[in-house]
Amino acid sequence: MEIDRIRPGEWNCRACIHGGLVFLSGTVADDKTLPMKEQTAQVLAKIDAVLNEAGTDKTRILSATVYLADIGRKEEMNEAWMAWVDADNLPTRTAVGVALTPGTLVEITVSAAR
Amino acid sequence: MEIDRIRPGEWNCRACIHGGLVFLSGTVADDKTLPMKEQTAQVLAKIDAVLNEAGTDKTRILSATVYLADIGRKEEMNEAWMAWVDADNLPTRTAVGVALTPGTLVEITVSAAR
Amino acid sequence: MEIDRIRPGEWNCRACIHGGLVFLSGTVADDKTLPMKEQTAQVLAKIDAVLNEAGTDKTRILSATVYLADIGRKEEMNEAWMAWVDADNLPTRTAVGVALTPGTLVEITVSAAR
Repeated sequence: MEIDRIRPGEWNCRACIHGGLVFLSGTVADDKTLPMKEQTAQVLAKIDAVLNEAGTDKTRILSATVYLADIGRKEEMNEAWMAWVDADNLPTRTAVGVALTPGTLVEITVSAAR
Repeated sequence: MEIDRIRPGEWNCRACIHGGLVFLSGTVADDKTLPMKEQTAQVLAKIDAVLNEAGTDKTRILSATVYLADIGRKEEMNEAWMAWVDADNLPTRTAVGVALTPGTLVEITVSAAR
Repeated sequence: MEIDRIRPGEWNCRACIHGGLVFLSGTVADDKTLPMKEQTAQVLAKIDAVLNEAGTDKTRILSATVYLADIGRKEEMNEAWMAWVDADNLPTRTAVGVALTPGTLVEITVSAAR
């Protein structure tokens, strides 16, 4: 079965599509000056765009891993998440604190069904 | 193909079922006063329950990611893991140290086949 | 549907094969004295070997999660990655900084299509 790739770049692509499944790369905000909630909103908007290119959307996310530069600010991330997520089609989620590159406060990786 | 969800809550569900695959949210212990080994045992018991609700069990886990609040206590986690895992049906596993919310010593995310 | 396992050990196996998907355990370098770039190259060579045993190869990786003991050395990891990855078949990737066991500078977990 073929693998279709969305926006291949230098070292990765934004999404791999295989059968009924879509795997996304870790997604970060472009504007590193934004605080946690706003970076999260920007990340989620970018994820929406890639999911759409892959022929699916946020109502069909199967799993999300949220990597936070500061676990103490998880609630700020969650405010943006709650404003975005489809309450009738909630995905699974894991949120942990890790070290990210300078300025990046949150990185999110999702897999979805098509 | 439909996505079935186990126990949807406020911001996520405990599991998404899609075709032959089941994805679980990160699972943590309810009793944060327990030490590492006992929190791990509680997490694994909760995972058993969700897998059962999803029509599968620990013998069909495909991948597990173990997030530890203190990588130096990996062996204590592993003692609970060894007492629990089916030796004839071992899953893949990754274990790393991250920052978790206060009191949580271990969080485990698994995917399984049905 | 059956799950085939590659090299089951004490607490995990190197890969689970289920239908068209292959899930690998987190893979680390055997020689902990090596610097980041060389440990990464060793990890990627080990991943190649497991993928081959599972009937696939690096051109069919769907997702990779790269765990770094020092996120500040991400570029050194990436040099080894760039020398290894198939530019015409780029996977998705997420790279984050975590705590690993002593001496381990990088651990990589991948899933692939067969």
